[in-house]
Amino acid sequence: MQQSQRGVFLTLEGGEGLGKSTAVKFIQQYLQQAQIDFITTREPGGTPVAEQIRQLLLNPNVAEEITPVTELLLMFASRSQHIVNLILPALAAGKWVICDRFVDASYAYQGGGRGFDTQQIKQLDDWIVGELRPQVTILLDAPPQLGMARAKNRSMHDRIEQEKLDFFERVRTAYLVRAKGEPDRFKIIDATKPLAAVQAEIKMIMDNIVGQYNEK
Amino acid sequence: MQQSQRGVFLTLEGGEGLGKSTAVKFIQQYLQQAQIDFITTREPGGTPVAEQIRQLLLNPNVAEEITPVTELLLMFASRSQHIVNLILPALAAGKWVICDRFVDASYAYQGGGRGFDTQQIKQLDDWIVGELRPQVTILLDAPPQLGMARAKNRSMHDRIEQEKLDFFERVRTAYLVRAKGEPDRFKIIDATKPLAAVQAEIKMIMDNIVGQYNEK
Repeated sequence: MQQSQRGVFLTLEGGEGLGKSTAVKFIQQYLQQAQIDFITTREPGGTPVAEQIRQLLLNPNVAEEITPVTELLLMFASRSQHIVNLILPALAAGKWVICDRFVDASYAYQGGGRGFDTQQIKQLDDWIVGELRPQVTILLDAPPQLGMARAKNRSMHDRIEQEKLDFFERVRTAYLVRAKGEPDRFKIIDATKPLAAVQAEIKMIMDNIVGQYNEK
Repeated sequence: MQQSQRGVFLTLEGGEGLGKSTAVKFIQQYLQQAQIDFITTREPGGTPVAEQIRQLLLNPNVAEEITPVTELLLMFASRSQHIVNLILPALAAGKWVICDRFVDASYAYQGGGRGFDTQQIKQLDDWIVGELRPQVTILLDAPPQLGMARAKNRSMHDRIEQEKLDFFERVRTAYLVRAKGEPDRFKIIDATKPLAAVQAEIKMIMDNIVGQYNEK
């Protein structure tokens, strides 16, 4: 896959309420100004079938308990649709792909949060994601209390957002473990900082990526 | 799991149009007459979430192509719901479970039909199905032309039924390979025979199971 990949693949990760959506909007504006062709997308979701799987996954009024295995398999089922039918074609067409959550989220939520063994997730990762890796992953990091307090103001919580604090503590820890393992790819941003400071960091990251990848 | 399992788990397998639904109805009547407590169910499906996954899987007017990986993962995602939330509780309560298709169908359709490596399916099988095995699997077998001709009279074909003849040839072969590997569990019925002959064979199979399992 790598040889036909021309666009830049950038993902955003982190818990709820830490400013991921605002960061995506900021990056959109940045790329528009830089006249770079891009798409923004999200996981779970991003294609018609993947969005239907998202609805199944996040429906807070689900008619029965969703097993951890089902949750993990549905995440990767939607990811397969997303990769094959959206991400790879966009990258091959030279577009940048900005994605709100990707496979790191499975390590964080299903690994850290639900307690799946990392090796089990890695098997699915190797099989379904394969060679496709984001060049850059921005991780918005903060104590989960902060995100939960901010997210509380939203009208409705999805099935996973209804989890308790210790779940999100484990999600955060798992994200930080991932980031430590791949320090070149991960750019950790302290999401407790004021918006202007966060955006200044994102701008610096984007300047670097454009310098590194867009001149080629 | 085995130690807490008290009911008998019986599955029916085979291609479309070979009389599986009629066989299920015949078995239902048999068990009612024998005053045996049972449930009938099906795959993909059997629980609310699994039935929603079934709709995704079989929708003939799907908005984008479903990748073979997505199809396989959705099958096992729905199977996890089905096992944990329906089959195991029913067996533990002493009920017989009569299931229209189970994990053998993944070997036949996704393995034989789509060409997935058996080992890849077996990994998911070991992980999601684990120790749970049907005591008896009735395989209705016939050349796929016959089933396709019969199924043609139905009003609408689902996404998988729209496949071509060679797909169903491979499905049939994969079923027969499974049956050859587990001759004690599989009871192959020649589905080209007249209904009365098929039902006589099913009755004999049921008499045997009741003799073997229900006296204990």
